[in-house]
Amino acid sequence: MDGRNIIANRFVSSVAEGFSAINASTGETLEGTFYPASMEDAEASLLLAGRAFTPYRQLDRTLRAKFLRTIASEIAALGDELTARAAAESGLPEGRIKGETGRTIGQLNMFADLVEEGSWVQAVIDSALPDRQPLPRPDLRKMFVPLGPVVVFGASNFPLAFSVAGGDTASALAAGCPVIVKAHSAHPGTSALVGAVIVKAAKATGMPDGVFSLLYDTGFGIGEALVKHPATKAVSFTGSFKGGMALTRLAQQREQPIPLFAEMGSINPVLFLPEAVKSRPQDLASKYAASVTLGTGQFCTNPGLMIAIQDEHTTVLLNELARLFGEAPSGTMLTAGICSNYQSLSGAILKEEGVKLVARSEVAGTAAFNQAAPTLVSVSARDFVRNEKLKEEIFGPYSLLVLAESREEVEQVVNSLDGQLTITVMAEDGELSQYAELLEALQQRTGRIILNGVPTGVEVCAAMQHGGPFPASNDSRFTSVGTDAIYRFVRPLCWQDWNHDLLPIELQDGNPAGIWRRVNNKWTTD
Amino acid sequence: MDGRNIIANRFVSSVAEGFSAINASTGETLEGTFYPASMEDAEASLLLAGRAFTPYRQLDRTLRAKFLRTIASEIAALGDELTARAAAESGLPEGRIKGETGRTIGQLNMFADLVEEGSWVQAVIDSALPDRQPLPRPDLRKMFVPLGPVVVFGASNFPLAFSVAGGDTASALAAGCPVIVKAHSAHPGTSALVGAVIVKAAKATGMPDGVFSLLYDTGFGIGEALVKHPATKAVSFTGSFKGGMALTRLAQQREQPIPLFAEMGSINPVLFLPEAVKSRPQDLASKYAASVTLGTGQFCTNPGLMIAIQDEHTTVLLNELARLFGEAPSGTMLTAGICSNYQSLSGAILKEEGVKLVARSEVAGTAAFNQAAPTLVSVSARDFVRNEKLKEEIFGPYSLLVLAESREEVEQVVNSLDGQLTITVMAEDGELSQYAELLEALQQRTGRIILNGVPTGVEVCAAMQHGGPFPASNDSRFTSVGTDAIYRFVRPLCWQDWNHDLLPIELQDGNPAGIWRRVNNKWTTD
Repeated sequence: MDGRNIIANRFVSSVAEGFSAINASTGETLEGTFYPASMEDAEASLLLAGRAFTPYRQLDRTLRAKFLRTIASEIAALGDELTARAAAESGLPEGRIKGETGRTIGQLNMFADLVEEGSWVQAVIDSALPDRQPLPRPDLRKMFVPLGPVVVFGASNFPLAFSVAGGDTASALAAGCPVIVKAHSAHPGTSALVGAVIVKAAKATGMPDGVFSLLYDTGFGIGEALVKHPATKAVSFTGSFKGGMALTRLAQQREQPIPLFAEMGSINPVLFLPEAVKSRPQDLASKYAASVTLGTGQFCTNPGLMIAIQDEHTTVLLNELARLFGEAPSGTMLTAGICSNYQSLSGAILKEEGVKLVARSEVAGTAAFNQAAPTLVSVSARDFVRNEKLKEEIFGPYSLLVLAESREEVEQVVNSLDGQLTITVMAEDGELSQYAELLEALQQRTGRIILNGVPTGVEVCAAMQHGGPFPASNDSRFTSVGTDAIYRFVRPLCWQDWNHDLLPIELQDGNPAGIWRRVNNKWTTD
Repeated sequence: MDGRNIIANRFVSSVAEGFSAINASTGETLEGTFYPASMEDAEASLLLAGRAFTPYRQLDRTLRAKFLRTIASEIAALGDELTARAAAESGLPEGRIKGETGRTIGQLNMFADLVEEGSWVQAVIDSALPDRQPLPRPDLRKMFVPLGPVVVFGASNFPLAFSVAGGDTASALAAGCPVIVKAHSAHPGTSALVGAVIVKAAKATGMPDGVFSLLYDTGFGIGEALVKHPATKAVSFTGSFKGGMALTRLAQQREQPIPLFAEMGSINPVLFLPEAVKSRPQDLASKYAASVTLGTGQFCTNPGLMIAIQDEHTTVLLNELARLFGEAPSGTMLTAGICSNYQSLSGAILKEEGVKLVARSEVAGTAAFNQAAPTLVSVSARDFVRNEKLKEEIFGPYSLLVLAESREEVEQVVNSLDGQLTITVMAEDGELSQYAELLEALQQRTGRIILNGVPTGVEVCAAMQHGGPFPASNDSRFTSVGTDAIYRFVRPLCWQDWNHDLLPIELQDGNPAGIWRRVNNKWTTD
C-alpha cells in the first residue's frame, strides 16, 4: 500500500515521518505508512489543479463520463482488499462496507450518466429579436459552467461514499472541477487504495494531470491551507457543527470568498402521532430501535429525537423501546475520539434537568475496542423546550424521547427546534390532515420530510435532498446526495451575441448535444 | 403623498421628525415628508411578515400572479406623477424613467407569468420501487419552496426597476416570500408612490397582511437591524462593494446565517481586438462613448475599462474617443454624495503612476446641480497590471483605456482582472478563434460575455445572467436580473412516502399543475 500523497497523479512524500492507521475494533496498528502533506504539497496540488481546470472542463462530456465509470469499475475490482481494509479502519461490519462500496460505485456511474446525458447544464436560449421596438433583443444563451478546483474533506462515517471517491468527488469531477481530497486521518489506507485507482483511471482515460490529488494530514493545517488557498473555488465537508463552522468562517474571510458546503448533522426528529402509537407501538419501537442503533448510530440521519404525547399507549411504546435498546448489543465506533465523546455526552446528558435514563444496553458487542452502548433517555416537553443542550446532536446510538402532555406542548417542542436534515412523522391514515399547522412548522425546519419511514438509508437519486436549514447544513439551498449535488460546483455563464462556432455545444443551434433546453421559454429537445 | 412607513399594509409613523427629498438636478427640497422607521417598526414589520409567510406561500399560484399583475397595472396607472417624481429625485431624464417604469412593469408581469406557468419549482419525482433488491426505494418528490421573509434594499441607480417594486421584490414575492423594503433615502417619494400601490394591490387581491412593508431611514440602523433580525431569511442588495460586504458580514455572523445577495458593481472590461480596431475605429468609439456616458455612467454594467493593443489604428480610436468624450455634455448624478465621490475619484486617478487624461468634457449639461463631466483616461498595460487602484470602479461617466504593447501584455492585463458582471470583446469575423486561451481567461472572470455589443442595456429574460465572480457580486451562482432571480429565495424540500393528498399540487400524480417535471429521470408534462 502506497501511503504517499498523490499530487496530480504522482506519488510524493516530502515529509520523512509517517503515521499509521488504527484498527477501530482492536486498537491495533494496521499495515502501511502514510505521509502528512507539507504546505508545499498543498500548494503544488492546487497549482496543478488550476492548470488542469481548463483542459478538463473542455473535455468532451463522454470522456468525463468514461473517467467516472473507470473509477467505479476500478473500485469494484479492489474487491475484498478494500472491504477488509475499510472495515478494519472504520470498525464498520463488512456487510455495511460492501453496501457502501456499492453505493459509491453507483454514485460514480450515476454522475457519469448525468454528464453523458448532458441536460444538467440547464441550457437556456433567448433568441435575438432584431426588429423589436424600441430596442432589439440580443441573442442570449446561458448554462452552468464549473467553478474551478474543489477541495473535498473525507468524512469519517462514510469511508467510501463520502470520502476519496465519494459523492462530493464524483459530483465535482462530473461538473468539470479538478478535485483535491484531504483524506480523513481515520481511514488513510482506504483512502490510499481508492486514491491509487483514481490515478489509474485518470491515466487510462487520458485525463489532464492535476485533475486529482490526495493529501494526508493528522491535524488541521493542510485542510485549512487548502480552504484558504486562492486557487480553491469551492469546498465540501461533512462532519461536526464545530468543524463545519470553523471552515465556513475561513472560506468567508478569504480575500475572494468561496462557497463551502458543510453538512453538519442533525438530530432528525421523529414525531409519533397518537393514532399511530395506539395502533402499532411494537412496530414503531422496533423500527426506531433498529434505526437508532444501525451502524452504531453513526449516520447523519440518525433519529436522535422522538416526540410523543404521553398516554397509556405511549407507555407501551416506551417500554418496548426500553426493551429493544436494552437488548441491542454495543457497537464499534469509528475512532477512539468519537467513542470517548459519545461516552462523555451520553453520560452528561443525564445531569440535565428532568432527563431520565430509560435504557442503556449492557449487551457486549462483537469487539472489545471503541464500544458504544445504545442509550435511550426521556424528558418532558417543558424541560426540553427550555434547554438548548437537549437539542444538540450526540453522535452515536443514542435517542431522546420527549414526552408531551398535550398537542400544544408538541407544537412548542416543534417550534423550539433548529433546522434538520430530516423530520419524520409516524401517523395513521387520515391522522395527518388534523395537524396542518404542525406539518407546516415541520416543513419549515427540514430538508426532507418522511411519513412512516425511518430517516436512515438515504436514497441516492434526483429527488433526494440531503441538506437542511441551518444548523443541519450551512446552506439549505444545496444537497450533498443525489444528482443535484453537482449544482454545488457550478455557476451560470451567459453568452451574448457570441460567435456560434465558439459556443459550447450545449448552446448551439440545432441542439447537437441533444439535451433538454429552455428555448424562448419553452422546454424542448429541438 | 403619504411618507409614513408601511407596515403590513398600514401607514405608520412612530417618529415625529421627518425628512424631505431633494431634487437631484436643482438641489431644491421636494414636497412630502418621510418618517424614518424606528426599531419597533422594523420589529413589527418582520413579525407580521413572519405571520404572513405561511398563508402567502400556500396561496394558489394564480392569486400570487394576480397580485404581481395588479401591482404592475397600478404602477402603470401612476403615469406622469411617478415619472415626474422619479426624474426629480434621481436627476435621470424623463425618457429614461419611462423606460425604467416599462421595465419594472415588464418584470412584474414576467414573474406573474413564471408563477402562473409553474414549472419554475423544478419538481422532481422518483417513484417508489417496492420490489427493488436488496432494499425497496421509497417514493421521493422534491421541489423548491420559499425561504421566508426577504429584505430588499432599494438601489439608488434604479429608482424603479431595483427599488420598491423592482426585480428583487418581484422575484421574492413570486417565490412566495413576504418582502420588507428598506427604501433608498435618495428617492423616498418614488418609493412612497410605489409602496402605496403595492398596498392597494395587496388589498384588492386579498393578500395576507404582512406580505409587504416599506421602511424609511436616513442612516444605516434600520437596514442593519433588518439584516440581523432572526425572522429575515434572505436579503438582496445592489450597491457599493463596501456596503455590500458590510451587509454580507452581518448576514454571515448571525446566529442563524442567511443568504445575502449583493450585486456590488464591476468595471465591465471591453477588449478591442486589432482587426476590429483597424476596420471600424469610428464605430467602436461612438458605441463606447455612448455606452460610458449613458445615464451619466450610473449603470452597474457601465464599461469602465477598455483594453487595446497600441498601433496606428488604435490612435485613430483613441482620438475619436477623445473627441466624443470631450463633446459629451455633463450629466446629473443621482445624489450629491455620489457626485462628489465621482469628482474626487476621477480627479485622484490622474495622480496614479502613468495615468494620463485623454479627455474631460467641458460641455455643460442641462442642469446646474450634481454635474459629472465625462472623463477618459489612459494608462499603459504595465502600469495597469501592477496598480490595484486602477481596477476599482469609479461610478459615473468615466472609462480607462489600457494600451498594451503586445498580445502578451493584453493577457497580463486580463489575468490581473477581478471578477466582473460583464466582459465584452469587439472583434472581426474569424478574429476570435485566434484567441482561444484569452477567451477562456475572460470567461472565468465574468457572468456574461458579449461579442460586438455594449454591456449596458441588460435584457430581462430567462437566459440573462446578472451577477459575476467576486467582487462583482458576492455569490456568482445567482442572478439578480431575469426569471432565474427567483432562485435566490428558495430551497429544495423533499417529501418521502408522503400522503398524496397533502403533497403540493406540483408533486401530485397525474400532474394537476400541468408543469414540466423530471419523473424517474425523464422530462415530461405527463
